[in-house]
Amino acid sequence: MSRVDDVLAGDIRSAARLMRDLDDRLPSAIDELKELYPKTGRAFIIGITGNPGAGKSTLVDSLITVYREAGMRVGVVAVDPTSPFSGGAILGDRIRMQRHAGDPGVFIRSLATRGQLGGLSRSTFDVASVMDAMGFERIIIETVGVGQDEIEVMKTAHTSVVVTVPGLGDDIQAIKAGILEIADVLVVNKADREGADRAMRDLFHMLDLRGRVGRQEVEIVKCIATLGTRPESGIAEVARAIDEHRTRSESLREERNMERAMAHVSELVRGLLADRAAQALAEQGGLEELVRTVVAGVQDPYTAAQSVVDRM
Amino acid sequence: MSRVDDVLAGDIRSAARLMRDLDDRLPSAIDELKELYPKTGRAFIIGITGNPGAGKSTLVDSLITVYREAGMRVGVVAVDPTSPFSGGAILGDRIRMQRHAGDPGVFIRSLATRGQLGGLSRSTFDVASVMDAMGFERIIIETVGVGQDEIEVMKTAHTSVVVTVPGLGDDIQAIKAGILEIADVLVVNKADREGADRAMRDLFHMLDLRGRVGRQEVEIVKCIATLGTRPESGIAEVARAIDEHRTRSESLREERNMERAMAHVSELVRGLLADRAAQALAEQGGLEELVRTVVAGVQDPYTAAQSVVDRM
Repeated sequence: MSRVDDVLAGDIRSAARLMRDLDDRLPSAIDELKELYPKTGRAFIIGITGNPGAGKSTLVDSLITVYREAGMRVGVVAVDPTSPFSGGAILGDRIRMQRHAGDPGVFIRSLATRGQLGGLSRSTFDVASVMDAMGFERIIIETVGVGQDEIEVMKTAHTSVVVTVPGLGDDIQAIKAGILEIADVLVVNKADREGADRAMRDLFHMLDLRGRVGRQEVEIVKCIATLGTRPESGIAEVARAIDEHRTRSESLREERNMERAMAHVSELVRGLLADRAAQALAEQGGLEELVRTVVAGVQDPYTAAQSVVDRM
Repeated sequence: MSRVDDVLAGDIRSAARLMRDLDDRLPSAIDELKELYPKTGRAFIIGITGNPGAGKSTLVDSLITVYREAGMRVGVVAVDPTSPFSGGAILGDRIRMQRHAGDPGVFIRSLATRGQLGGLSRSTFDVASVMDAMGFERIIIETVGVGQDEIEVMKTAHTSVVVTVPGLGDDIQAIKAGILEIADVLVVNKADREGADRAMRDLFHMLDLRGRVGRQEVEIVKCIATLGTRPESGIAEVARAIDEHRTRSESLREERNMERAMAHVSELVRGLLADRAAQALAEQGGLEELVRTVVAGVQDPYTAAQSVVDRM
């Protein structure tokens, strides 16, 4: 039996190895992914992002429980683009989710930026595609922070959930424009904190300013993710809002799939080009040699960069 | 007199036009930048980043005043990678800095991500290089958020300042590992808030865990940026910590210049490749045409991406 068969049969260890090989860009792994690709397209992919400290991991943890109780298998891609040096999240952030680690119906995979020329959303697409081919019904992509990387990563999702907390509302920067544009569901977490209603009003106002209210495009829900799946946690409301967005956007599915594929192909093109650039640099004695001439004032950075590309 | 001469003579309107042309990637503008390049290398470049809502703009505003009072000319590059849709910061975030707009010794330029294949740190390098050639003694690069983009952008700086606020400390995610790795000066802003001392201790502890304490590499200072340059604001302490890092890192200047040039050349190579990819796609009837075949299941995304690169 080939590894592709093992993966399709749901073998998590084989899948994890394939994901690692994809990360290392082994050509054989990419061939396997191409084989898996026709089996994808069944999963419902949910992106979750928001401010650092908004409680995203706790929310994801509770959502996993909700979906598991409904009999669904859940894949989680935890993306951390802010740790290029440590190679991953530090200090126990995602430990909460670990209680699902023994459950074969839950597959959690962490991703971090590995190098300057690496592509985080490429890896996210790869991992989500493998999980999709394996038959996971729900795939949750959790990403930390609110930068451009996260927005790219969120393009992988069918439904985008943005999590925030009360008390950041006095600074309008707390949720940036770019993130509001992509939100399908807005969650005010830690809703037992003072200022939850104000946060709801502020969000509503900001959406209104951006012309996104009234078209039923975005729903704002409150929750207290630390209460798990207890009724007063509001997690059922979050799950319902996500599902309703799914139903509501059924007619836009084709369009969304185009957007997702656009993002995916663009990312892959960027990745292939980065590989070629790295190769061209290696043939020219490496980036360091070239940069030394720039620092010494022998040539300017534009001329140096042009010489790399010209030799490709 | 050529535009290059005008820019070197300090003409801000000519410089702003050149920056816009660089943003549009006009070949003539790149030639002008190449001419300016030998005049760069004199400015001291300070990067400022931190959590959304940490009060970075207010801090920058006060730092401008400090430097102006010391007779220095100040350039500011305000980078906002989180607004790819709106094309810039919204809702008055940077209005505070506008009070310096009438001062010919202050040149403020905002940058936002413009497209998927755009390079934000490339633009930052370009703008900073122009300001440097113009003879601005201090260049402040302010960037919003804490993602991978910001880390790339911060590589443009000689000294990196990371700003945070009390009250985020209960979630260790508030400042991510990647950002801590690049910080030369850590500022706890809004230090009149409850929990300021705890935030200082937490930061110290986190730095200690990462082996960055004791080597005198990083300094942590408190400040209340809203108090402007009043003695109790602590802004003088921030400026002093920045200057001390500059002195302390004198011996590392060569190494830092290598790192900066590495980041710059890599970014330019990526940009040139992205331009070529866009061109190759245009020749193939555009990305949309190609992606349609992927969505229809005619080919997988990897094969589609490979075909773009092969035709380049």
